[in-house]
Amino acid sequence: MIAKSQHHWTGDVADLLRVGDGFRLADVDPRSTPGYDKDKVRAAEDLGTGALQLDEYQERLFAESRVDATDASVLLVLQAMDSAGKGGIIRHVVGSVDPQGVSLAAFKKPTPEELAHDFLWRIEQRVPEPGLIGVFDRSHYEDVLIGRVRELAPAAEIERRYGAINEFEKRLVDGGTRVVKVMLHISPDEQKRRLGERLDRPDKHWKYNPGDVDERELWPAYMAAYQTVFERTSTTWAPWHVVPADRKWYARLAVQHLLLEALEDIDPKWPVATFDVAAEKARLAAS
Amino acid sequence: MIAKSQHHWTGDVADLLRVGDGFRLADVDPRSTPGYDKDKVRAAEDLGTGALQLDEYQERLFAESRVDATDASVLLVLQAMDSAGKGGIIRHVVGSVDPQGVSLAAFKKPTPEELAHDFLWRIEQRVPEPGLIGVFDRSHYEDVLIGRVRELAPAAEIERRYGAINEFEKRLVDGGTRVVKVMLHISPDEQKRRLGERLDRPDKHWKYNPGDVDERELWPAYMAAYQTVFERTSTTWAPWHVVPADRKWYARLAVQHLLLEALEDIDPKWPVATFDVAAEKARLAAS
Repeated sequence: MIAKSQHHWTGDVADLLRVGDGFRLADVDPRSTPGYDKDKVRAAEDLGTGALQLDEYQERLFAESRVDATDASVLLVLQAMDSAGKGGIIRHVVGSVDPQGVSLAAFKKPTPEELAHDFLWRIEQRVPEPGLIGVFDRSHYEDVLIGRVRELAPAAEIERRYGAINEFEKRLVDGGTRVVKVMLHISPDEQKRRLGERLDRPDKHWKYNPGDVDERELWPAYMAAYQTVFERTSTTWAPWHVVPADRKWYARLAVQHLLLEALEDIDPKWPVATFDVAAEKARLAAS
Repeated sequence: MIAKSQHHWTGDVADLLRVGDGFRLADVDPRSTPGYDKDKVRAAEDLGTGALQLDEYQERLFAESRVDATDASVLLVLQAMDSAGKGGIIRHVVGSVDPQGVSLAAFKKPTPEELAHDFLWRIEQRVPEPGLIGVFDRSHYEDVLIGRVRELAPAAEIERRYGAINEFEKRLVDGGTRVVKVMLHISPDEQKRRLGERLDRPDKHWKYNPGDVDERELWPAYMAAYQTVFERTSTTWAPWHVVPADRKWYARLAVQHLLLEALEDIDPKWPVATFDVAAEKARLAAS
């Protein structure tokens, strides 16, 4: 049995982080820790407890899918400015479950073949099958974020995409997928500190891209594009969550909690045997 | 720095497990622990040490690939009778590295579309990109194992496949992939015990398939098919390793070691910066 979450949350995290009417990104403090008043050490313990819960939920969900007892899946959509900690979420939160139950898709700059199709073409191909936790490291939202900021498509096309995204996600949800959308929100100062660390450490140089500094110039434009994304695509079926991410430990704990909630909502059970257990024991003994 | 393996091996594991001239599967004791004379507790410690090494090697390899500094990858091919522990290897050995560095492909019974193509068609699509550790949970070898035992293809076609496999793997190796082929070898008695455990535990019923007992009748035919696979496809560029697997802890430690050897052979280094570090520090400070 999975006990209900034993975390030290002081409030409903999903409620606290969910983007609703009147949400303003500018009002969110990236160093805050909504719903959690313990420290980093306690958070690490809670993350460990949550990892065990996530692991069992995931295995149950996977088990149900193997016997065609569910069409449920989870899709975690991760968006963020550079160095906000997407990789750490994948490694430390998603990485705690069996790799056989995870489907990970990292969306880079589109290829010419991808660009020749509708922007959702490459996304559709990576939607998780029933039983899996899918993770999108960047996603279709790039097409209304960098797409808007860098004017990679005509304004009318960008406008069209918000509606297309909502319809696409509605279809996923109707098909059994819980869509968990997360923006990891860091401050420009924290990003500067993290990029500086990459420059200071030779084993981190490969993670540094000079283009990251150019993007910093566009910070206000990106924040405006995110604000529009939230206003246009935080739906009842697939709401956005803005997770303060200047403290990595908080962001990881919060995202883990959002995944746990999605799985609690699915409430997967160990499948009942579709064969006669006693008869199979006899056959096995005789084999 | 990665210290050379600190494990308590008493011999060269890869040498001990590698299939060479005159190999006879029937001579391998599935309960043996070649090259390791410590117990399960010490093995768990060694597995933990190895996990840290594997993790760093993998990240270095990934880093090199991100800056186009390598074409190297690793491909672990896992074959075994049911319940031999493939899943445990994926979870406990592969699962210890960053999921972003792993490409996992589980090959099931072929679909009609897959059957309409050459047997290597679906395999080719799942070959790991540079920088990744690919894992095949079952593989093209099914087409000369169950394919042979169940006569799913004409005898001449099965014969043709051994050569096609060797050429295919040679091409992978020439392209930079280290192909690590592993057969997890369990005894029929151990399989009976493990299947019995699945029947005893309601949370394991979903893993039990009545067809598994039918397959037990064909055990000698499968062992003969494996013996032929070893004779025909254990090449200098992609040798087979038969890992005794009645003791799960040994099998995991041995496979981890084979992966570590492949990565030591690649010897990935943290990439040197392709930008002017001092200039970037100044730009970042001014941003």
